[in-house]
Amino acid sequence: MKKNALPITRKEDFAEWYQAVIKGADLAENSGVRGCMIIKPWGYAIWERMQKLLDGKIKATGHENCYFPIFIPLDLFEKEAEHIQGFAKEMAIVTHHRLEEKDGKLQIAGKLEIPLVVRPTSETVISEAFSRWVSSYRDLPIKINQWANVVRWEMRPRMFLRTAEFLWQEGHTAHESQVEAEEETLQMLEVYRTFVEDEMCIPLIVGKKSPSERFPGAVETYCIEAMMQDGKALQAGTSHYLGQTFSKASGIKFQDKDGVLQYAHTTSWGVSTRLIGGMIMTHSDDDGLRLPPKIAPRQIVILPVLKNQDKTDEVLEACKALKDRLDNCSFGFENIRASVEIPKGDDRGRYWDWVRKGVPIICEVGPRDLENDTVAVAVRDKVGDKKKILKVDEFVKTAGNILGEYEKELLRAAKAYRDERTVTGLSDLAALREYFEKNESGFAMVKWSEDSESEESLKQMGVTIRCLPLIQSGQEGICALTGKRATIDVVLAKSY
Amino acid sequence: MKKNALPITRKEDFAEWYQAVIKGADLAENSGVRGCMIIKPWGYAIWERMQKLLDGKIKATGHENCYFPIFIPLDLFEKEAEHIQGFAKEMAIVTHHRLEEKDGKLQIAGKLEIPLVVRPTSETVISEAFSRWVSSYRDLPIKINQWANVVRWEMRPRMFLRTAEFLWQEGHTAHESQVEAEEETLQMLEVYRTFVEDEMCIPLIVGKKSPSERFPGAVETYCIEAMMQDGKALQAGTSHYLGQTFSKASGIKFQDKDGVLQYAHTTSWGVSTRLIGGMIMTHSDDDGLRLPPKIAPRQIVILPVLKNQDKTDEVLEACKALKDRLDNCSFGFENIRASVEIPKGDDRGRYWDWVRKGVPIICEVGPRDLENDTVAVAVRDKVGDKKKILKVDEFVKTAGNILGEYEKELLRAAKAYRDERTVTGLSDLAALREYFEKNESGFAMVKWSEDSESEESLKQMGVTIRCLPLIQSGQEGICALTGKRATIDVVLAKSY
Repeated sequence: MKKNALPITRKEDFAEWYQAVIKGADLAENSGVRGCMIIKPWGYAIWERMQKLLDGKIKATGHENCYFPIFIPLDLFEKEAEHIQGFAKEMAIVTHHRLEEKDGKLQIAGKLEIPLVVRPTSETVISEAFSRWVSSYRDLPIKINQWANVVRWEMRPRMFLRTAEFLWQEGHTAHESQVEAEEETLQMLEVYRTFVEDEMCIPLIVGKKSPSERFPGAVETYCIEAMMQDGKALQAGTSHYLGQTFSKASGIKFQDKDGVLQYAHTTSWGVSTRLIGGMIMTHSDDDGLRLPPKIAPRQIVILPVLKNQDKTDEVLEACKALKDRLDNCSFGFENIRASVEIPKGDDRGRYWDWVRKGVPIICEVGPRDLENDTVAVAVRDKVGDKKKILKVDEFVKTAGNILGEYEKELLRAAKAYRDERTVTGLSDLAALREYFEKNESGFAMVKWSEDSESEESLKQMGVTIRCLPLIQSGQEGICALTGKRATIDVVLAKSY
Repeated sequence: MKKNALPITRKEDFAEWYQAVIKGADLAENSGVRGCMIIKPWGYAIWERMQKLLDGKIKATGHENCYFPIFIPLDLFEKEAEHIQGFAKEMAIVTHHRLEEKDGKLQIAGKLEIPLVVRPTSETVISEAFSRWVSSYRDLPIKINQWANVVRWEMRPRMFLRTAEFLWQEGHTAHESQVEAEEETLQMLEVYRTFVEDEMCIPLIVGKKSPSERFPGAVETYCIEAMMQDGKALQAGTSHYLGQTFSKASGIKFQDKDGVLQYAHTTSWGVSTRLIGGMIMTHSDDDGLRLPPKIAPRQIVILPVLKNQDKTDEVLEACKALKDRLDNCSFGFENIRASVEIPKGDDRGRYWDWVRKGVPIICEVGPRDLENDTVAVAVRDKVGDKKKILKVDEFVKTAGNILGEYEKELLRAAKAYRDERTVTGLSDLAALREYFEKNESGFAMVKWSEDSESEESLKQMGVTIRCLPLIQSGQEGICALTGKRATIDVVLAKSY
C-alpha cells in the first residue's frame, strides 16, 4: 500500500488534514498576532495568479481600480443602522494615534475624538465618495474596484477560511436605475462563476441568499456555493444589489434626464483569500495540495537527478533547455510556466515536496535521459504510479494537452463528488435531522415555503439555507421545513 | 500668449500648483478621513504600472512576495528600543475589537489586553517570523517582499507626499554575513535607481544618509534623492543595512558551516506612493501632469472629432483601426497602450482634459482625415503648438520612436533643471544661510567633517544633509559647517 505524503488523511480528521495540506505546501502559517496569518511565498504566488486572472475579468467588464482609506470614522459607519449592527461584533477600533513617555515608560496617548474603524468592508466610505462624484445622470454609472486588506475580528480563526485580517477585492458601483444595478449584480456573479469554475476548477451552485443571510444593508445577496470534501458548503463569493440603502444614507443623488432628483442604485461584490481555502478543500488529496493549472504559480517543475557527479553540468543544461522549450509552449491564453529546481544540498524527499505543493506536472531528468533524450513525467493526480518515460520532443508537444486534461479532470472529479453527496427527496424535518446527523451528509435539495421563522429549526441542526439556486425547477412540492405547499428549490447544508 | 490649462502656475504658488495638477489629472482627493486620501482610477492606474515594473525587477533579483499581518502587538514592537522611539509619535493604535449596545447606544467594547499597532513598517513582525524560519545556514538567505498599506500618523498631511495611510513595497532579507547583507542593500538601491531614473525619468543622487537621518534601528541607510521643481529634495526610496539589530531583538539565529551559532544580518528597503508625488513635481508643467511613457496607463489617446454627424461611424472605425495598429507596435519590452476616448455628450475641452492627465501623445481623427488617411498628433510637451498632421502609416511606424524621444527629453530636462539649481563652492555657514534664504535655492554640494552636532546649525535654516553621495571626489577641502578640514562630499537641501 502506498504511503501518503501527509501525516494524516481526510478520513482520519478533515480539519487536521486541512492544516497539514497548508503546512505541507508551505502556503501560510499562524503569526504571533491573534487571528492573523502570514501568507508565505507559495501561498502568495497563488493569490497573485488569482488576482491577475480575476483582475483581467473585472477590467474587461468596464471597472477601474481605485484605493480608499483603510480607516472609517465611527460616525460615518453609523449612518446606516442595519449595516453597523451587522459588523458591530467584529470591528477593530483605533482609538489613539501615538505613544508618549510617562514615568519612564511608553504609554498610549493622543486619543482620537472620533474613533476609527479598521474597514471590515468599504460601502460607507465609498458611498460617501460617490456622493461627491455624482450630481447628474451623466456621472453614472460609476464602476470601481479595489484590492485591499480588511479586518473582521474572528473568535474562531482558521487559516484562509476565517482570519481577522484577509485580502480581497471589493467592487462598488452606482447606477441610474434598479434594472441596471441588478444587471451589474448578476453580471459580476457570472464573472465570479466563470473564474471559479473555469480557472479554479471548483463546481458551483449559483443562487441568491434567503433574507436572513443577506449582507447587512443589501436588498438582495447573490452567491456562489461550493462543496468541500467533507460535504460542507463554502460561500465562495457574493454579489449584492444594495438598492438605495447606502445612497440614502450618504446622499448619492443625481438629476435624471428629466431634471428630477433621484437616489442612485448601488451594488457591491467581493471574493477573498478565503477562496484559497475553498480550493484546498476541493482539490487536495492525502498527498497534499493539487493546483488547477491556471492557478499554479509553476505548472511544470523539472528536477535534475544529480547522482552521477560528473554529468552534473550536462543534466542541468538539459533541464534548462527543456524549461526554455516549455516556456515557449502555450496553455490557454498564456505561456506555460516551468521551472528548474536545483537541490540545495541534500535532495532526498524533493519529489514529494513538489507533490505536496500541488504542482500539476513534475519531471525528472537524469544522466540516463541524456543519452535517450527522455524525461520522466508524473502528473499530480497519479503520483503513486510509475513515472512515464517520454521522449523530450513528445513531452514538449503534448505538455499543454496534459495540463488541459488535468484541468478537466479536477473539475470533473469535484463535480462527481458533489453530485454523489447531494440528496433530493427529503420531505420533512425528521428526515433532514437524520440526514444531517450522519458524517456523510452533503447538500440537500428541498422545497421551501419562504417562511423566515422556519430557518430557525434548521439552525438548531447546524444547517443553513445556502441559497435559492438561480435555476429553479418551477415544480410544486412540499416544503421540508413547514410542510406547506411550495415551489422554491433551496440547497441546505452545513457550512464553513 | 498661451493660456495654461491649470488655474495657477508653478511660479505663482508651487504648493497650490501641485494640488491643481492632482485635481486637473483626477489622480486623487482628500477623503473624509483625516490625513487619508482616495486614489482615483487614473492615479491608481499609474501606481499599478509602477508596481508591475518594479515587481518584475524585485522578482528578477530573486525575491518572493509574501504577506504579513497589518497589526503588530505593542509588546513585540517594543523589543527594539531605538525602533519604537523612532515611530512612537505617529502610531495608530487599535485598543478594542467590537461595539456593544449600552444605554441604547453603540459603545466601544472588547478591550484588548495587548494593544495592536497598525504597521508603520514591518521589521518587527517579519523578524519574528524569520526567527522561526531560520535555524541553519542552509535556510539563508531569505529574500522576501510585500506590497502593502502602512500607517504613519501625519500632523501635516499632503497628498502622495505625506499621508497617514500610504501604499508601498517593503523588502526584507536575512543573510549569513555582513558582506552579503551589504551587497543586498546596495543591489536593491541600484534596482530603485534604474527603476526611478530609467522608467520614471527622475534623475537621482544616490548616497547614504548621515547618522542622524538613519532609519530607526539601521546601521546604514542608503537613499535616492531627487530635486523637485521648487529646488527642494525628495527622498524617493531607501535601502537599509540593519546589521544584527533586529536579529538580536527577535533571535534570528543560525548554525553556521562550522556549527557555531550566529545572528543573521538583515536588510530592508522600500518605495511608496510618495514616488507619485515626486514624479508630479519633477515633470509636470503649468498645463498639468506629464507622464513618462513607461508609467503612463495609456501612452496614446485617440480622440474622434465628431462634428460632422453623418461620418460618425467612419471616424470611430478609423480611430479603432488606428488603436489596433498602435497596440501591435512595441515600445521598450511591451506593446504600446493606446485607447479611443469616445466623448460622453459634450466634448468641449476634451483635448485639454487629456493634456492635464499627462498622456504622452494625443491624436485627433476627424472626417477630413478619412479622405487623406491622416491623423493630427500632439506630443505632450508641445501642447500649445499646432498639431502635426501625419499620414497614418508614418505615425504608426514612428510612434515608438516618438515615445522614446519624449522619454529621453523628460529625463534630460529634469537633469538640466537640477544641475542648474545645484551650487558648489559655498564654504561657510553664512554663505549657506544666504543661499538657502533665496527662493531659488536648490542643492548645495559642500564638504563635511562628519561632526554630528554640526547638523544642528543646518536644521535652524530648514536644511538637512540629504546624503553622502556614493560617488565621492576624494579631494580635501574645508567643511562648510565647521571650518575643519574634510574630504567627504555631502548634498544639502531643503526637503519634503
